[in-house]
Amino acid sequence: MPYHYDIKSVSPPLDASIQQKLDQKTKPPGSLGQLEHLAAQIARVQRSLSPSLEKLSHLVFAADHGVCAQGVSPYPSEVTRQMVLNFMSGGAAINVFCRQHNVDLTVIDAGIRGEPLPPHPSFIDARVRDGSGDISQEPAMSSEELDQALNQGGELARLQLAEGTPILSFGEMGIGNTTAGAALMAACLDLPAELCVGDGTGADANLLVHKSRVVEQALLLHRPNLVDGAAIMRHLGGLELAMMAGAMAATAEVGQLFIVDGFLATAALLTLWRDQPEVLDYAVFSHLSNEHGHQLMLERLGVSPLLHLDLRLGEGTGAVLAWPLVQSAVAFFNEMASFDSAGVSNRT
Amino acid sequence: MPYHYDIKSVSPPLDASIQQKLDQKTKPPGSLGQLEHLAAQIARVQRSLSPSLEKLSHLVFAADHGVCAQGVSPYPSEVTRQMVLNFMSGGAAINVFCRQHNVDLTVIDAGIRGEPLPPHPSFIDARVRDGSGDISQEPAMSSEELDQALNQGGELARLQLAEGTPILSFGEMGIGNTTAGAALMAACLDLPAELCVGDGTGADANLLVHKSRVVEQALLLHRPNLVDGAAIMRHLGGLELAMMAGAMAATAEVGQLFIVDGFLATAALLTLWRDQPEVLDYAVFSHLSNEHGHQLMLERLGVSPLLHLDLRLGEGTGAVLAWPLVQSAVAFFNEMASFDSAGVSNRT
Repeated sequence: MPYHYDIKSVSPPLDASIQQKLDQKTKPPGSLGQLEHLAAQIARVQRSLSPSLEKLSHLVFAADHGVCAQGVSPYPSEVTRQMVLNFMSGGAAINVFCRQHNVDLTVIDAGIRGEPLPPHPSFIDARVRDGSGDISQEPAMSSEELDQALNQGGELARLQLAEGTPILSFGEMGIGNTTAGAALMAACLDLPAELCVGDGTGADANLLVHKSRVVEQALLLHRPNLVDGAAIMRHLGGLELAMMAGAMAATAEVGQLFIVDGFLATAALLTLWRDQPEVLDYAVFSHLSNEHGHQLMLERLGVSPLLHLDLRLGEGTGAVLAWPLVQSAVAFFNEMASFDSAGVSNRT
Repeated sequence: MPYHYDIKSVSPPLDASIQQKLDQKTKPPGSLGQLEHLAAQIARVQRSLSPSLEKLSHLVFAADHGVCAQGVSPYPSEVTRQMVLNFMSGGAAINVFCRQHNVDLTVIDAGIRGEPLPPHPSFIDARVRDGSGDISQEPAMSSEELDQALNQGGELARLQLAEGTPILSFGEMGIGNTTAGAALMAACLDLPAELCVGDGTGADANLLVHKSRVVEQALLLHRPNLVDGAAIMRHLGGLELAMMAGAMAATAEVGQLFIVDGFLATAALLTLWRDQPEVLDYAVFSHLSNEHGHQLMLERLGVSPLLHLDLRLGEGTGAVLAWPLVQSAVAFFNEMASFDSAGVSNRT
């Protein structure tokens, strides 16, 4: 069964007023470039000529991947758990950037292997199972596990939104997950594996070839079942990616914006977009990842990201780094003077 | 006489320690992309493995351009003055972004035409003369006026730095100044006018051709005198651009960093770089402007800007929008845990 969320396409009644407001600002028309498109998107989604985005909450979903048994990553699976502990003690990149921008950070165990992690105020244990299945041999998860991950993600997003946060961003941690992301991309966009597989945390040329073969094997094994975005996620995805997709869908259902990070967040979104393209109306694309494949994903979606910094760290770091630009879009739209109000002559 | 500032090239004694510190952070090596290069630059300039950039001060230099008499802009010259009044009342884009990021903003009259502007706490009257000469007919300024502009810019920068601000950024306002900027670019990089002239505030195709002809005329008239960067600035530049160049040079002399905005700030820098290439060590490039020519400038300098947002507003808006990324580079370098300290396994 495909994803079936109640996501409404944003209707355009305000579009003319939004453009008029943009063009009356004391600047050459269009001279704020992408920030103008972003301001228009935010105003459209909020159906307001005075949009507001006071605060961002960031959710990092973590899980392990059975496909690590195929030797697809230079890091051992244990690093997923170790990095979650690093998130808890505040030492990871995502902690630094969330502190810098006063962004609330919540880390979620969606499917880490082994013992439960210790309790922590910004940690939620929502583990669906101990790591996903090895997609080269079996489905990543069962239908019930997919539903559970989607529902958990949706619930976590709705909880944040209900507390008054008007925009969410999502990150991931999961050794092996660029292999799953490449498989999702290949299946959603009907592309060969080698266009989708990238370095991940730092594969060398041999490992890249091996990753491609593992993804091809997974695609071959599951092809008859890859009938829609949800089925693609179930067979080829991962628990953190499924939970993230559920969170994105729930945010769009509520009519709020979310910031999409890099390769893996876009891969999760692709599965939603395949079944429900209107989800794109609510998505702000933060950066072009250095991970091979991300550019092609964004091109297929027809979207332009805010940052091009050759990032490939994950955790949602690109989304949080782009957050000040999202706030800048709102700020200029609300605060800049018009030619009339400032007494500035317009073009002759 | 060429620029002759006492700018020291940043020596590399710390480079190995900087790279070691970067590679011990809990992330795949290089995965913070350009932010890693930026962190390394900041550490090198500050000669410290714990660099610090607490605060940014932004200076906007404003002046009129005699070349406006040739009809090179769709906006009347009066807009320079009107926009400075808009800066004073807080309604311009640069005001919005400076407020957002708690950046001190100072606006300087480097050479606006007409009556002096009214006093204002964040305004400095440093007017060298009432608008530059029409570069298609005469030098932009005399040698004495160039010296005065450079000295004023240097003094203003040193004042900010002496007050403890460790990094400066610079913007400009001047109707007609993309024509001057294109002439500086053509002369510094030995390029034909049409590769350097762009839309500015919004030239149509006819105006673009006309702007190119005006720049060609200026280049032809002054060619025998364009012997070095300072001479290029004197004959083809503008008062706000000369004052900005003086501020950049003084910042580099003191051994501090400055953020370079778009086309015009880079044009001012080109004149310095031609005489003293070591100035680049201190320059952080904030964004790739949508103004035609900027990409080629950056390629010739061999630098990569932080943002690609199709901005072409001026005022230094790109520099201030990039400021949070500069702070992010410092923050991750100082605050992220190492593999050892966090107990995270490194690559196998």
